Amino acid sequence: MSVPVINFEEKFSKIQDLHSYKVIARMNDYYFKLVRVKRDFVWHKHAETDEVFVVFEGKLRIDLRDKILFLHKGDMAVIPKGAEHKTSCAEECKVLLIEPAETLNTGDAGGALTDTNLEWI
Amino acid sequence: MSVPVINFEEKFSKIQDLHSYKVIARMNDYYFKLVRVKRDFVWHKHAETDEVFVVFEGKLRIDLRDKILFLHKGDMAVIPKGAEHKTSCAEECKVLLIEPAETLNTGDAGGALTDTNLEWI
Repeated sequence: MSVPVINFEEKFSKIQDLHSYKVIARMNDYYFKLVRVKRDFVWHKHAETDEVFVVFEGKLRIDLRDKILFLHKGDMAVIPKGAEHKTSCAEECKVLLIEPAETLNTGDAGGALTDTNLEWI
Repeated sequence: MSVPVINFEEKFSKIQDLHSYKVIARMNDYYFKLVRVKRDFVWHKHAETDEVFVVFEGKLRIDLRDKILFLHKGDMAVIPKGAEHKTSCAEECKVLLIEPAETLNTGDAGGALTDTNLEWI
């Protein structure tokens, strides 16, 4: 049985590219994914699952249809299943996502920004 | 729809007592629980689920039957389901646990340290 200690900072340091989701851990059917982001994302929802965002660096804006959230370092939010949302940031953010392994980043929206190439680091 | 921004540091500051688990978020059937710990815990396992530990402060020792892990600030570990483990720390640690809502802190061991009084903060 191999049980590693996983350091978030060390894992982020291994990520070279923006907008490339990297898996760092699995808990049952859930993935812990890190991503460096600097973009306006697309409106989308996940019909089957809640989605957790944790910000490690930067200021992440999450638009909901009735509210705008701003997450800074040390903040988290749980986007409810079915809730349309859109992330954006003008400066780079380092973000941890926690969600079922099969969850697509673009949810029901699909399109060019969909990333199905999940690499473990 | 109420979607709060949850700040870990602010939530930890609300916890007065050691060894009192507080729920800060729910993702599907999973709870995010904070706890301030300073004790040797009991050997136990969770037959049905993996369990995630994230350390925000202090140095948490997790004994497995074949290995000892030390988690510092910014570290996480996923204890596999069925794996016996025992946490301990001589100085206080601030820890985030992620696990199914019904998971008992003492797993299969039960006993006096079992905490079924989960309060939301």
